[in-house]
Amino acid sequence: MSSDSTNVQWGGRFSESTDAFVAAFTASVGFDRRLYRYDIEGSIAHASMLGKVGVLTADERDQIIAGLQAVMADIEQGAFEWSVALEDVHMNVEKALTDRIGAVGKKLHTGRSRNDQVATDIRLYLRDEIDHISAELTRLQQGLVNLAEQEADTIMPGFTHLQSAQPVTFGHHLLAWNEMLERDHGRLRDCRARMNVLPLGAAALAGTTYPIDRQFTADLLGFDGVTENSLDSVSDRDFAIEFGAAASLIMMHLSRMSEELVLWTSAQFGFVELPDRFCTGSSIMPQKKNPDVPELVRGKSGRVFGHLMSLLTLMKSQPLAYNKDNQEDKEPVFDTVDTLAGSLRAFADMVPYIEARRANMKEAAIRGYSTATDLADYLVKKGMPFRDAHEVVGQSVAHGLAQGKDLSEMTLDELQQFSTTIEQDVFDVLTLEGSVAARDHLGGTAPAQVRAAVVRARTRLDQRGK
Amino acid sequence: MSSDSTNVQWGGRFSESTDAFVAAFTASVGFDRRLYRYDIEGSIAHASMLGKVGVLTADERDQIIAGLQAVMADIEQGAFEWSVALEDVHMNVEKALTDRIGAVGKKLHTGRSRNDQVATDIRLYLRDEIDHISAELTRLQQGLVNLAEQEADTIMPGFTHLQSAQPVTFGHHLLAWNEMLERDHGRLRDCRARMNVLPLGAAALAGTTYPIDRQFTADLLGFDGVTENSLDSVSDRDFAIEFGAAASLIMMHLSRMSEELVLWTSAQFGFVELPDRFCTGSSIMPQKKNPDVPELVRGKSGRVFGHLMSLLTLMKSQPLAYNKDNQEDKEPVFDTVDTLAGSLRAFADMVPYIEARRANMKEAAIRGYSTATDLADYLVKKGMPFRDAHEVVGQSVAHGLAQGKDLSEMTLDELQQFSTTIEQDVFDVLTLEGSVAARDHLGGTAPAQVRAAVVRARTRLDQRGK
Amino acid sequence: MSSDSTNVQWGGRFSESTDAFVAAFTASVGFDRRLYRYDIEGSIAHASMLGKVGVLTADERDQIIAGLQAVMADIEQGAFEWSVALEDVHMNVEKALTDRIGAVGKKLHTGRSRNDQVATDIRLYLRDEIDHISAELTRLQQGLVNLAEQEADTIMPGFTHLQSAQPVTFGHHLLAWNEMLERDHGRLRDCRARMNVLPLGAAALAGTTYPIDRQFTADLLGFDGVTENSLDSVSDRDFAIEFGAAASLIMMHLSRMSEELVLWTSAQFGFVELPDRFCTGSSIMPQKKNPDVPELVRGKSGRVFGHLMSLLTLMKSQPLAYNKDNQEDKEPVFDTVDTLAGSLRAFADMVPYIEARRANMKEAAIRGYSTATDLADYLVKKGMPFRDAHEVVGQSVAHGLAQGKDLSEMTLDELQQFSTTIEQDVFDVLTLEGSVAARDHLGGTAPAQVRAAVVRARTRLDQRGK
Amino acid sequence: MSSDSTNVQWGGRFSESTDAFVAAFTASVGFDRRLYRYDIEGSIAHASMLGKVGVLTADERDQIIAGLQAVMADIEQGAFEWSVALEDVHMNVEKALTDRIGAVGKKLHTGRSRNDQVATDIRLYLRDEIDHISAELTRLQQGLVNLAEQEADTIMPGFTHLQSAQPVTFGHHLLAWNEMLERDHGRLRDCRARMNVLPLGAAALAGTTYPIDRQFTADLLGFDGVTENSLDSVSDRDFAIEFGAAASLIMMHLSRMSEELVLWTSAQFGFVELPDRFCTGSSIMPQKKNPDVPELVRGKSGRVFGHLMSLLTLMKSQPLAYNKDNQEDKEPVFDTVDTLAGSLRAFADMVPYIEARRANMKEAAIRGYSTATDLADYLVKKGMPFRDAHEVVGQSVAHGLAQGKDLSEMTLDELQQFSTTIEQDVFDVLTLEGSVAARDHLGGTAPAQVRAAVVRARTRLDQRGK
Repeated sequence: MSSDSTNVQWGGRFSESTDAFVAAFTASVGFDRRLYRYDIEGSIAHASMLGKVGVLTADERDQIIAGLQAVMADIEQGAFEWSVALEDVHMNVEKALTDRIGAVGKKLHTGRSRNDQVATDIRLYLRDEIDHISAELTRLQQGLVNLAEQEADTIMPGFTHLQSAQPVTFGHHLLAWNEMLERDHGRLRDCRARMNVLPLGAAALAGTTYPIDRQFTADLLGFDGVTENSLDSVSDRDFAIEFGAAASLIMMHLSRMSEELVLWTSAQFGFVELPDRFCTGSSIMPQKKNPDVPELVRGKSGRVFGHLMSLLTLMKSQPLAYNKDNQEDKEPVFDTVDTLAGSLRAFADMVPYIEARRANMKEAAIRGYSTATDLADYLVKKGMPFRDAHEVVGQSVAHGLAQGKDLSEMTLDELQQFSTTIEQDVFDVLTLEGSVAARDHLGGTAPAQVRAAVVRARTRLDQRGK
Repeated sequence: MSSDSTNVQWGGRFSESTDAFVAAFTASVGFDRRLYRYDIEGSIAHASMLGKVGVLTADERDQIIAGLQAVMADIEQGAFEWSVALEDVHMNVEKALTDRIGAVGKKLHTGRSRNDQVATDIRLYLRDEIDHISAELTRLQQGLVNLAEQEADTIMPGFTHLQSAQPVTFGHHLLAWNEMLERDHGRLRDCRARMNVLPLGAAALAGTTYPIDRQFTADLLGFDGVTENSLDSVSDRDFAIEFGAAASLIMMHLSRMSEELVLWTSAQFGFVELPDRFCTGSSIMPQKKNPDVPELVRGKSGRVFGHLMSLLTLMKSQPLAYNKDNQEDKEPVFDTVDTLAGSLRAFADMVPYIEARRANMKEAAIRGYSTATDLADYLVKKGMPFRDAHEVVGQSVAHGLAQGKDLSEMTLDELQQFSTTIEQDVFDVLTLEGSVAARDHLGGTAPAQVRAAVVRARTRLDQRGK
Repeated sequence: MSSDSTNVQWGGRFSESTDAFVAAFTASVGFDRRLYRYDIEGSIAHASMLGKVGVLTADERDQIIAGLQAVMADIEQGAFEWSVALEDVHMNVEKALTDRIGAVGKKLHTGRSRNDQVATDIRLYLRDEIDHISAELTRLQQGLVNLAEQEADTIMPGFTHLQSAQPVTFGHHLLAWNEMLERDHGRLRDCRARMNVLPLGAAALAGTTYPIDRQFTADLLGFDGVTENSLDSVSDRDFAIEFGAAASLIMMHLSRMSEELVLWTSAQFGFVELPDRFCTGSSIMPQKKNPDVPELVRGKSGRVFGHLMSLLTLMKSQPLAYNKDNQEDKEPVFDTVDTLAGSLRAFADMVPYIEARRANMKEAAIRGYSTATDLADYLVKKGMPFRDAHEVVGQSVAHGLAQGKDLSEMTLDELQQFSTTIEQDVFDVLTLEGSVAARDHLGGTAPAQVRAAVVRARTRLDQRGK
Repeated sequence: MSSDSTNVQWGGRFSESTDAFVAAFTASVGFDRRLYRYDIEGSIAHASMLGKVGVLTADERDQIIAGLQAVMADIEQGAFEWSVALEDVHMNVEKALTDRIGAVGKKLHTGRSRNDQVATDIRLYLRDEIDHISAELTRLQQGLVNLAEQEADTIMPGFTHLQSAQPVTFGHHLLAWNEMLERDHGRLRDCRARMNVLPLGAAALAGTTYPIDRQFTADLLGFDGVTENSLDSVSDRDFAIEFGAAASLIMMHLSRMSEELVLWTSAQFGFVELPDRFCTGSSIMPQKKNPDVPELVRGKSGRVFGHLMSLLTLMKSQPLAYNKDNQEDKEPVFDTVDTLAGSLRAFADMVPYIEARRANMKEAAIRGYSTATDLADYLVKKGMPFRDAHEVVGQSVAHGLAQGKDLSEMTLDELQQFSTTIEQDVFDVLTLEGSVAARDHLGGTAPAQVRAAVVRARTRLDQRGK
């Protein structure tokens, strides 16, 4: 049987070579080469373990490690030719290794398979990226907390249904954003902890006949432990989905902040100003200053949601253990990482330079009948049933709308049309400052509470990474 | 000003009543009445707190609590008329309370709003449901671990690409399922912890002017703490999305198990038998026995993924604080809970009664050239380079396919056509038992490892809830 | 063999009855009873066909048809007991039929199965609902076109990036909404045409041995033809997904209109007023008037997107022909129909009563530097290169921002600081009226064009259903 | 005012340059350069129109067109440097044009903006790609129809619930696949028709003050008409979503075919053989031959569903007209096109070479009690009520399962245990050939019907493009 009657790669069972289009269509090196560093680090740890348990001699181990380090250097210097014919990052690296150090290089693959190798690579990669993303998240939160402290006394209308509801402080609003991100940080941390176990040793699906020491490899690579089941190890992509869900929540939060920044920079709101360097103009309309960063980030939320859905669909009803479908896990994860990291960086860079247009905020709070609840509370405290107070205030607002006046702009006579219970002291409760200061409990919008919340938020941020 | 010139519910600011279709279209009582128990428990705790801080007298507090308990009893006995005109569960309960105890009932709503009330209700509800779902998950895992122990020595083909790859034990395969669920349990636990903080006290959005004691209420309701920010408290729906993501992963796992059960009960595989009581037949085709439960659960995975997407879309780019959009959070959560709890119950009931058809499994493992890797390993140990060994085995398999024979069914002469290195002792490594026993490390498929994994899995299950 | 040793429903192949929870978990009558009318109409047509081809005698046919009509009457009068034990709408109806007319009722099921029956029912149902939804869509479009005509001269700022860009007319903006819905109508029409073929005759999956006349049944039921392949007929759910996609686009469009209505009713924009009857207030804040309908519709978009994703996931990688998974197609379709029909009704009711606050719109257009492009065009016409003109206008706007003045509010001296090319006639091009009138081509915002577009839109609407 | 105090690109309104990271983060040239051909074709048509209406002189028009053709040639020869600083494909092309022909190049942008330009480019691109995809779809269908003709008599088990149901022909099964794709072709055709209208002329959002002739441009570019509304023209992305939905349905169908091919190539089914050149092996397990193409295509379905969700989320609740969010429409569309075109090509190449393993199919049909319905029909024709016949057959099957025998393998004595109505002629109806031949109506599985369906399917395919 001549060698050219068999498929070079798959051996004697095959009677023809892979179709050229199929080879390109099924190859992954176009995107998985991104994992090269983790692939090589994993291989170095694997070789060290094989040396420790005696499958490799010390000399073989050292040759392999030196060879892998040289391949890494080649790649980082751009002196590496990636080959689609070699399918993926693993076979590209292994081929380069054997080209460099000869047959001993082939011993590296002892006791493992590409199935557990790629599962290891992607966990190492994602662990690093989660750390990077968490750091950007922290930086963004620090910016928010600083800005919140600075704006702890700045009054703006608080909205429900995008209608003025009650006055709040801008600092309080910024801390609401910070709370969203605080939960996000927790989710990333949980996701990282759950995935930080070593799948290597599962081999193709059933484990290996070699006397491997998985815990040794795990220790070298910084894993907290080893996976419990080989079939699960090569088929599990939960970490990608859990990360995708955590990323979707972060992007959802950024889309909410973005929406508000777009609103606030509109001429109609005019609540904040973004620095010119974070905006773009128009080649046609000379007056335009567009809040591109928040708009684009808002748009990018869909991208990350889509990847999550893609990954869930991918895994739906796959039988164990490894199927080729799983190759489709990488691009959604890579693009989620890039989108998230870029969006967080843009926000972390921009947030400290958000400039509050305090006069506009205050004016809007005054104009929006935002102290109507305070008027009702005032009447209740004077003994009126809440339901009746609500009616009185509603009529006062209807009058104000008709006359174009805020409650605080009406005369006592005008107000007394609706209830004679109203007296001169009403004007104290109709002030914005009085309104916010009165909401003085943990979680409330009173400036003192905002300052206390800033302190607590900073403490939490400071404790990260300790 | 006559009362009929104003909207009864919204008061003096409104000049006409709500359109009848709009009232029905925007009402939520049709689905949120499901929260009644949590709404009343939350109200009882709130009344207790108002009593403690002096906003209610002890007598008022006691009247309100007694009244609420009576309303709860009415609802549970079916003696309650829900009114769409009263919009939602909160106003239905409050109306019933004031009908029963008079004007004092109206004082219950002091220092809160429906915005923080509903946020509290749904957390209480979801916390309970997560506990229930976690218990069903545990029950399913216990069934799997027991079955795995029983089938620790049962050999079946392990598949990759749905092609026989290497022999594994059925117990090992079942433990792969258990690992998926183990991660799911962790995600539910993390989700529960993150959401178990009290939002009450945020009032409409900014906090309240009353001297509330939020920690006191939190303690009464079993919350671990209180939320940090009032705006975030009324707008946050992260818990629903995080739960939806955890639920999607569980359903994805169940869909994979389902796919395998559907395959395995087919005539072609014939690996397992499900009890008749978990199957249905056909009114037309008398021979049919259909694996309805796994099929239906597989189909239901899409439903839960869809709800997750629904919730993410819902929250995308919503400005703070509360918008009417948020009312749409409930139905996806309710249906996710029902689908998940039902699917887990069906699986937990069924799994202990899965009957392995061991002879079929073994026959399939023999027929599938699943020990081809073992033959290659045999040749390598005799000194042949792995690449050459791979080629020899590939040619042997090609021969076997042409002749309709497994490797173990060939004569020594036949095998030696492909390599004279093969000797009589080859037949030891071609046994299934030898193959699985050789994969004897943590995570491997060797029966001894499966038994050890069963012990560890049981220990983890036993420690839950302690 | 005693009858209690076999499963009553599935017969001799089964040795035990269905588990009670499994029976409830797998039953569909809780939701598919909604199809009763279509189920009965389909059965009447089927019986007519069986009579025509001689499988039923004329007398049998007439008995069955009379019986089915009586069952229909019972259901419509609420005098029908649905049984979960009978699983689904089909078996409930059939049982009621045989209870009423005896054994001849059993002959109805000749030559069909529940697989092709349900495929027929749901197409009949969805065809009706598409017609209803198309009518609501048309009603909404008519309202928009009428309002557009009325507001053909009303000037508002046109936005890009939510920044004032150029003045447009409100009528023009409303016609943009109409264009979205025009495409939606086309998609519904295409979806309806593609699904309006009869699957009945496919029987369980392979067709039937009876001499059926499928075209006869199709004609009776108003189908345009019959399906080509029995396996495809019972497994196809494309129509549900195509409808879900068309519905998602409609809801997406409504979410965009909703977003604008929410913006426009805010105090900050103040562009439109919605009638009180389409809004709600707050039980706490007496001044609130919330745009509940657009908010809720915006939120409901996610629900419909989620159902689409649910259906795609459901069908992903299902082997032919019918699987139990398919039962999960109904609830997403039903809820999509309800959500869509309700949202369209609410909008069609509300749109004619949107009240433009023309002064506010105009004021915003004046204040937003929206004629900056016109100033640049003016300079270009005076011979200045566009790039330089753009720079001059940009500097003028920067000056205006610093001074709080619009371009039209500056003196000639002020403007000439930036370019001496500017002369007295500049104030003509800085008017809003001049700006909109100048965009006078098909698709442009000039009032004359808007009126012409109204005429074309009406013509298209009038031709529907002809 | 010195020029360096202003932003080079956005002019005088800006006081600082764009942040470098922001510039890279918001640039689109990295992906939209793919549109260069359509951008240039659109510009040539626009220049021709400007010449026709007199905005450009004939000489200017000719210079611009020649310059654009030279730029196109540069790009196609790889002699073009794309610049991120120039943001997008439009400004890269325009800059190259003006570098080449001088200031006259700047006149090209008269009467248009990038907003309507990109909307035109992407429609031209997608129209071409739809044509390409439709051609691949047709090629795949032709392969299926040919194979169906060849296998019109090949009997296999028809499945419901993955359990043998009734015998069908393999040709019939393949035609079921063809029906799915036939609907897909119709959806692509509808999508193409709906989007084939020219948006150019909308300019930034409101139209232009130049005397453009949109119909002239539309004719040059092969559009069927022009869009009706300028605001809608720059904000509409329906075509992308409608295409994404049509693509999702195609991928869903391919995932179903893939699932079946994976099942059928398993050792357990063994129904078909795929050529080696469409499969890959394993570097570890020498016996493996994996159906990579169907597995990968099945996995890629999630990717396309995800992009659909991404696009829907992107457009959800965007106010008019153009927002930066919209830039995110391209990558999902591009990747959908690539995934779909590649998957269809792989299938169209592979399907003609699917080899039926007819003996295995027939054996499976015999073993699966697939003629049980025929036995019941036999008894009914002898006068037994269907319900009783169903019970008799069920008991016969139970006996067969216990004895390991198919119905056709039992003796007459054995069968008569269950009913003495059974006579010698029963063995005629228990043949597979008799069973399939009896389902002889339009849509049924009888070989004669399959052949007739092949003729109809070919006729439809032949009429495409005529």
